[in-house]
Amino acid sequence: MINIETCLTPEILHLHQLEGKIAVVTDVLRATSCMVAGLNAGVKSVIPVKKVEEALAYAAKGYVTAGERGGIKVEEFTIGNSPYEHMEEAYHGKSICMTTTNGTVAIDAAKKTADQVVIGALLNVTAVADYIKQQEKDIIIICAGWKGNPSLEDTLFAGALIHQLKHRSEITDDASYMALSQYEASNSNLTEVISKNASHAKRLSGLKAQNDLAFCAKEDYCDILPILTGDEITIKK
Amino acid sequence: MINIETCLTPEILHLHQLEGKIAVVTDVLRATSCMVAGLNAGVKSVIPVKKVEEALAYAAKGYVTAGERGGIKVEEFTIGNSPYEHMEEAYHGKSICMTTTNGTVAIDAAKKTADQVVIGALLNVTAVADYIKQQEKDIIIICAGWKGNPSLEDTLFAGALIHQLKHRSEITDDASYMALSQYEASNSNLTEVISKNASHAKRLSGLKAQNDLAFCAKEDYCDILPILTGDEITIKK
Repeated sequence: MINIETCLTPEILHLHQLEGKIAVVTDVLRATSCMVAGLNAGVKSVIPVKKVEEALAYAAKGYVTAGERGGIKVEEFTIGNSPYEHMEEAYHGKSICMTTTNGTVAIDAAKKTADQVVIGALLNVTAVADYIKQQEKDIIIICAGWKGNPSLEDTLFAGALIHQLKHRSEITDDASYMALSQYEASNSNLTEVISKNASHAKRLSGLKAQNDLAFCAKEDYCDILPILTGDEITIKK
Repeated sequence: MINIETCLTPEILHLHQLEGKIAVVTDVLRATSCMVAGLNAGVKSVIPVKKVEEALAYAAKGYVTAGERGGIKVEEFTIGNSPYEHMEEAYHGKSICMTTTNGTVAIDAAKKTADQVVIGALLNVTAVADYIKQQEKDIIIICAGWKGNPSLEDTLFAGALIHQLKHRSEITDDASYMALSQYEASNSNLTEVISKNASHAKRLSGLKAQNDLAFCAKEDYCDILPILTGDEITIKK
């Protein structure tokens, strides 16, 4: 039996024990969706960093830089936080250094103590579930949330993952149960549920952002498993 | 329109602004349920305190003391954390000083900045909803949770309250939306949903605790509105 727990926001990650566990980090809108989409399209690796200054140091070494603060592209960066940008041919074979308001902070917090850090998004949820089933290790799903608060879209990812694991796992906390029932109630139309109800969706205005949202809400767009090794996220072969 | 937000655990209360708002504090299992049940039965007032030592200082002044740490009655206290104890005739007309692991901590955090602090439980959810409708002020629902983590039963209370207010309010965060859909999915049988799925329910063993749980899951057992004035919770006339 795999024990599952869910941390709805990194703000309470200190209450969880990560040692010996696989941490699945998600930031559906849009950091981990960008990573999954980019790596699947041909990006060589993603280096998540916590601060803009760290990313700029990578930029000085010739790296592609990506990310946002408060949902807006950092001016000096090559690209922002749209999965479509991360899939562009120009970045195939390249390494992207990325920092975002919530997602890369969550990865940074997880990598300090978890046994493994896996990058999850709705786009690759079945690939993540299959890997967990194979590993048979306890997991903690870490939702990036929004500035410390829980977010609907990340909670739905947690629910989608737990849904796939529920017959071979033990739910150990209320957050996991709530994520699962949230997902099972929303199952038929994630795009609509997220568009209508997620506060993050309301912050994304304009056609381009709406396209991003619809893309990020797609379950199983691809089947890659991005995993963190050292400071770099690559596809696990 | 009333703006509604929900804080799923006091651990992230610092991210919320309480000024000018009505804070509805809940700890369904069992602190606020005890307060509601006791006051409804005839207890004169409840004085919530943060620490065991503070309660013992009240005990020295002749007050009835109540509460738990980690779910277990504090040895020196008159009574523990079962709503049935709080309803006993011996305490009618008396003031009870109470401290619990989660609930009284949440009240203490709220009283510093909120405009008003209202005590909510499933037992009096409609009375709370009616009061909010009458006041037409923005509210924040503060769930006591369990040792910093969100709890199912408190989230269900938030959902039950939002359900009653939803046609005259604006949900401003994802936690409120998730609480509402959790409640609406569980509506028909709160006792069963809580007993089967809340980790807190699993920590309550024995027939007495099971009776407490079934009692605390009752919606609208009474219609009183306990409100904090200074350091004391009394029924609002």
